[in-house]
Amino acid sequence: MSAPGLVSLVGAGPGDPDLLTRRAAQRLAEADLVLYDALVSPATLALATRAQRFYVGKRCKNHAMAQETIHRLMVRAARRGCRVVRLKGGDPFVFGRGAEEALALQAAGVPFEVVPGVSSALAAPALAGIPVTHRGVAAAFTVVSGHDAATWQPIVDALRPGSSTLVVLMGLGSRAAIAAALQARGWAASTPCAVLLGASTPEAATWTGTLDRLGEAPIPEGAADAPGTLVVGEVVAVGDRLSGRTPSEEPAAVTAAGAARRHSWQR
Amino acid sequence: MSAPGLVSLVGAGPGDPDLLTRRAAQRLAEADLVLYDALVSPATLALATRAQRFYVGKRCKNHAMAQETIHRLMVRAARRGCRVVRLKGGDPFVFGRGAEEALALQAAGVPFEVVPGVSSALAAPALAGIPVTHRGVAAAFTVVSGHDAATWQPIVDALRPGSSTLVVLMGLGSRAAIAAALQARGWAASTPCAVLLGASTPEAATWTGTLDRLGEAPIPEGAADAPGTLVVGEVVAVGDRLSGRTPSEEPAAVTAAGAARRHSWQR
Repeated sequence: MSAPGLVSLVGAGPGDPDLLTRRAAQRLAEADLVLYDALVSPATLALATRAQRFYVGKRCKNHAMAQETIHRLMVRAARRGCRVVRLKGGDPFVFGRGAEEALALQAAGVPFEVVPGVSSALAAPALAGIPVTHRGVAAAFTVVSGHDAATWQPIVDALRPGSSTLVVLMGLGSRAAIAAALQARGWAASTPCAVLLGASTPEAATWTGTLDRLGEAPIPEGAADAPGTLVVGEVVAVGDRLSGRTPSEEPAAVTAAGAARRHSWQR
Repeated sequence: MSAPGLVSLVGAGPGDPDLLTRRAAQRLAEADLVLYDALVSPATLALATRAQRFYVGKRCKNHAMAQETIHRLMVRAARRGCRVVRLKGGDPFVFGRGAEEALALQAAGVPFEVVPGVSSALAAPALAGIPVTHRGVAAAFTVVSGHDAATWQPIVDALRPGSSTLVVLMGLGSRAAIAAALQARGWAASTPCAVLLGASTPEAATWTGTLDRLGEAPIPEGAADAPGTLVVGEVVAVGDRLSGRTPSEEPAAVTAAGAARRHSWQR
């Protein structure tokens, strides 16, 4: 082929293919090659009917493919005139090295575009009824990766306790350490928290409780490495009201009366 | 009609109808009634082919309709069996009172759902080539509304300078005050900044510069009340590299060599 190719860095959203953008679905339908990550669902991949599909994902420290190899695959295919979709869970420019890949494409002189996606940082809370902002409760939110302490500890240190809703992506395995660090920094033990598993998928499950119990939130066997979102802040109590996870409308009573229900998983 | 209605609180994304989710497009196509806000584009509304459409938006302090009236309209239509779409710019649970409306629906016993959308807080930077996180540059981002100082000042005070990318929605008119407050708090005058107008629309335009010049960013006549996104942090320099807004790859040289180009608007 002589026509120039194109690499689309596409956000796949939280998992449900109905939460893809229309442009993402279009790019998948037209793609010759799809390079996808661990958090992309089979139903989403199925939209790429004419493409070769390769798994190039990373999961914790178990990289399926070196970053440089991913760059080389994209560049080579685009130079052959292929339409390449680089498909990433959530939004391509929220964690996950999207901009590194874009810089590599730019350095190679390969045309590329960014197709923003629905980030789990917003969608996971929203689908559990939790608004990341709410008038009189939270006027801002901060999103951080929980993947390793070198990343999240400086943010915990930099943020005044309770000033902002805190959303942690990839933090299931670190939940006890993060909860301890937040309390050491001065966040109240009674701060409402949520653990959100598999948002938008049939396996979606929600746990809510308080910061002093977050470390004990019973994650199902094998799920500690699964996609999960932590939310810390008073907005979680708003979500409990909205989702009927507690019968009371009184924030003070929510913690007490709703405690039993709020400490079990709900689907 | 006797079938129960449904209210869908739907995120319309940043403006381009191709950045709607597939579910949002589906809900619009099926809707009997659409209640939409100021930031929703005509091309998006056009997807609601069979619906009655009402503008109920708010713009600054000029409310088209009282919040209680919006609640009443939604409840009444749903009780008549209508499929109602409450369409909000970006994501329905990021600012904009989405959860307040959900609470009103819940109190009235009306079935509702949340359809997450692509937030401008992420899409506006991404479409200008700016990643809100980037390895070795920013490991977190904070999103705040710039609508009034009572909202953003506490967040500026609560966040250690430079610790996180700062994204300000609805902050065009406050850009000078926010820039001054950040510098007073200790953010470096040389911190890269971006002003992003009309992201994803044909009127999209990008200005990048430094924090000490942010207040002087020349906003086009009449645009101070328009949708706009501010980004403050070193990731803006990554976006300059990616978008060719500066010829140099050296962060130190970017500010100097690229200054002339970086202080003009680019489409």
